[in-house]
Amino acid sequence: MKVLMSVTNISEGKNRELINSVADAIKQTEGVKLLEVASDKDHNRSVFSYLGEPLAVLEASKKLVDLSIEGIDMALHKGDHPRMGAVDVVPFIPVRNLDTAEALSIANKLGSYIGAKGVPVYYYEDAATRPERRNLVMVRKGQYEALNAKMSDPAWLPDEGPAIFNAKSGATAVGVRMPLVALNINLGTDDLKIADKIARSVRHLNGGLRYVRAIGINLSEEGMVQVSMNLTNYEKTPVHRVMETVRFETSRYGVSIVSAELVGPVPLGALEEMVRFYLQVHEFSVDQIIETNLLE
Amino acid sequence: MKVLMSVTNISEGKNRELINSVADAIKQTEGVKLLEVASDKDHNRSVFSYLGEPLAVLEASKKLVDLSIEGIDMALHKGDHPRMGAVDVVPFIPVRNLDTAEALSIANKLGSYIGAKGVPVYYYEDAATRPERRNLVMVRKGQYEALNAKMSDPAWLPDEGPAIFNAKSGATAVGVRMPLVALNINLGTDDLKIADKIARSVRHLNGGLRYVRAIGINLSEEGMVQVSMNLTNYEKTPVHRVMETVRFETSRYGVSIVSAELVGPVPLGALEEMVRFYLQVHEFSVDQIIETNLLE
Repeated sequence: MKVLMSVTNISEGKNRELINSVADAIKQTEGVKLLEVASDKDHNRSVFSYLGEPLAVLEASKKLVDLSIEGIDMALHKGDHPRMGAVDVVPFIPVRNLDTAEALSIANKLGSYIGAKGVPVYYYEDAATRPERRNLVMVRKGQYEALNAKMSDPAWLPDEGPAIFNAKSGATAVGVRMPLVALNINLGTDDLKIADKIARSVRHLNGGLRYVRAIGINLSEEGMVQVSMNLTNYEKTPVHRVMETVRFETSRYGVSIVSAELVGPVPLGALEEMVRFYLQVHEFSVDQIIETNLLE
Repeated sequence: MKVLMSVTNISEGKNRELINSVADAIKQTEGVKLLEVASDKDHNRSVFSYLGEPLAVLEASKKLVDLSIEGIDMALHKGDHPRMGAVDVVPFIPVRNLDTAEALSIANKLGSYIGAKGVPVYYYEDAATRPERRNLVMVRKGQYEALNAKMSDPAWLPDEGPAIFNAKSGATAVGVRMPLVALNINLGTDDLKIADKIARSVRHLNGGLRYVRAIGINLSEEGMVQVSMNLTNYEKTPVHRVMETVRFETSRYGVSIVSAELVGPVPLGALEEMVRFYLQVHEFSVDQIIETNLLE
């Protein structure tokens, strides 16, 4: 069985009727499972996490697009979170038995569907058509309010749809990315400088591991500090390598790791290399796990 | 979703028609997945591995029993493997969202079904009704040929069915057990004495970890020795504890671990405590794994 996930963001966090109708439409799509709906009133934004067979996930995403474009008017939208469209961001995440190329073909199908509705689309991350569009922050820079001017710049012609400002629906970012692994490591010290130094030693930005973003955080209530990390490609920068790098960098200060947290969903594949490393089982495959027989 | 597995052994390894009809009957049972059929002509024995919803697995097992009791005549059976019945051993293995008690109720339902067909049944391992019946070796001691005499001993009255020798079908052992984890650790030495010492230090028999069976093995082609282990309860004796015990016991000889092997199927639950230990993520749950959403 192939499994694709989407964690789609729409610019509506208050209108329960619309939010529920989107959730229902996803749930009612054969072959799709809705994992979570997280709505935030201050952000005026909802995030739908769903997964299933790739074409079924595409189908659910189209329904989400239809309902959101009909029910949201960006000209009236207010919210604290950066946003540029009614359907703001649609990332597709390959979870099982499909690769980036296959996820990309689904992303392109959805992009072209949205474009045909007269809504400009920018592809980002692994779907980006130009290097400067990989980063969502750059794609969304200036937000909805700047879109009209931004599209007149040839560098920001949309990838799909007309290069014409759509006042009601704004624009949509559609992307492909690996599942994130969110790993926080708590250190037995209250010295934030140490967490900062560890974060800098392990993160890509400062010469560390390529697919690691990291910051130091104060956990004042616990009397500890934390290295808070996102691993953006667990295949190329596996979890154990991040863990052991933090461990040896921490030891130089006479500090030890008290505990760690894997936050939110973890892809099964992220455990494969971990088992191989810690148990030295060089040939281990997650397909050996009994339960995977039930996923085929 | 609850998942129960069975790894059922029947005393027929040559008759393809019968073996295929049993395999087909299992496959055609709604809610059951047949993982493997392993037939051995010298043993004259076949092992069917299948899993699914508990009641569906019971249903498939009943079909296997019907076909095997009809198609196998133990009075004519020859084979190298110890055996006492047409349906020789039926272990039920709780894999997901059910406990031993629930697996036991399925084992008892099958046992009573087999008994009602006039075939004596002995419950073993976690289904045993007396301590001396826990060990399958003891239950099967003397094999088919000794059954008639054995059943006249009050200590070996069957748990189900008549205490009357059934010449055609023999007797059946029905049990409940945890999934095994088969872990082999290869040492960077060709000295078998070291592997033997490590095996003795880690196994229950000689004062080691309670749910570990271990032997030292010579891998002469590789120029290495191996500590070959079965972990019979990964919840109470977790994999990392076995690994790290072997590691520190090995280090005293100046020998290191070259590699390891997890042989065959591994239950997902066996990875939970491993991740908690090696990543110090004390709160990790396998339910965080994205793919488990597809198992519900």
